[in-house]
Amino acid sequence: MEERRIASAVIKRMPRYYRYLGQLIDNGIKKTSSKELSALMNITASQIRQDLNNFGCFGQQGYGYDVNSLYLEVKKILGINHAHNMIIVGCGNLGQALANYKNFGNRGFNVIGIFDKNPETFKVSIRGVSVSDIEEMPPFLKDNEVDIAVLTLPKEAVYQVATLLVDHNVKGIWNFSGMELVLPDRSVIVENTQLTDSLMTLAYRLNDRRQLEKHRDQLRDSMKTVR
Amino acid sequence: MEERRIASAVIKRMPRYYRYLGQLIDNGIKKTSSKELSALMNITASQIRQDLNNFGCFGQQGYGYDVNSLYLEVKKILGINHAHNMIIVGCGNLGQALANYKNFGNRGFNVIGIFDKNPETFKVSIRGVSVSDIEEMPPFLKDNEVDIAVLTLPKEAVYQVATLLVDHNVKGIWNFSGMELVLPDRSVIVENTQLTDSLMTLAYRLNDRRQLEKHRDQLRDSMKTVR
Repeated sequence: MEERRIASAVIKRMPRYYRYLGQLIDNGIKKTSSKELSALMNITASQIRQDLNNFGCFGQQGYGYDVNSLYLEVKKILGINHAHNMIIVGCGNLGQALANYKNFGNRGFNVIGIFDKNPETFKVSIRGVSVSDIEEMPPFLKDNEVDIAVLTLPKEAVYQVATLLVDHNVKGIWNFSGMELVLPDRSVIVENTQLTDSLMTLAYRLNDRRQLEKHRDQLRDSMKTVR
Repeated sequence: MEERRIASAVIKRMPRYYRYLGQLIDNGIKKTSSKELSALMNITASQIRQDLNNFGCFGQQGYGYDVNSLYLEVKKILGINHAHNMIIVGCGNLGQALANYKNFGNRGFNVIGIFDKNPETFKVSIRGVSVSDIEEMPPFLKDNEVDIAVLTLPKEAVYQVATLLVDHNVKGIWNFSGMELVLPDRSVIVENTQLTDSLMTLAYRLNDRRQLEKHRDQLRDSMKTVR
């Protein structure tokens, strides 16, 4: 078996393939082609073929891709063909929004525990899981195999909680705390998600557009002067 | 003035520079270098120099970068040196989480309206903005200049609401509905944010790690047999 190193840009596109293929299945579509996917997803057909070839997903010449098998293949690539046990640490609005998200279950991400330090939240129960005191997290981690911990807590608490999680063999951390988490223990996979980065990218594009329009207006005005 | 086209990968890194420079300022640090930023941000120093050179932000040989001016420069590049008026459409948990986010204000994103269709939410007021009936959104958009609309609503409603926003000259849409929004009117900038994509990327990396470990174990076992 060769060690395969796939470019992270390719990996980042895989969830999008997964979502679009799921949509095709929902719409009762049985086969597709890189050309059709291209029109739908706004990526070039050759990029799609390249991406999928990385994983040995070859379409058949003249037929294209069987939607269902490609979907299952992508699911397997993403590692979501088997279930993941997940806990949510921090039950503020974002924690609750994630705990309520029904597609997690469909994708095999099972929320088995929710923890917070605020006693007010202990009354809350989301999708059958009641919120527990964060003090109860260490014994919970001893008794349950947790694959992924979602951190929706203030950034001040993130390193302390992360250390606890690593000590209890949690393998992945999905971090929303706003503080980028870098762990010395490289065996734990951390995904730092910064919600506001995409808002700033949006602001950049708005600004870029505004300047382009200004530039065009100036050009038009100067053309008038020339005439 | 030349038209500048910056690669989107560069643009996507700019919010990270902005956050890290903000942290340096908070820590009272006045100057930095691409080497120091590299250690902090886990990008190569040459990548950092390249990224910043795109925008004409040159450090001084032997001195590096002045943190404060670089921060202001990046802020200007991102277009967050002037304020943006923002509304939030959909006041579920995610809408509330975003409405509560205090860093928006610091970065010039002012939430001036929150809309929902559920009368239960009309009692809610977040950071001084009370939730209004979505029926009141069109007159609100006539009276107020809105730069960005945040869509935290079910995907079934997204196209109808987006059309309304475009008709009222909203320039940017930050879409969390789960349905990728593609608008025929290219003058509106859409940023589709899929929260669960980063979770699936995390699952990929967990799976990849698991397979690597399995591979190593097999290799170790086969070495034992050879001895």
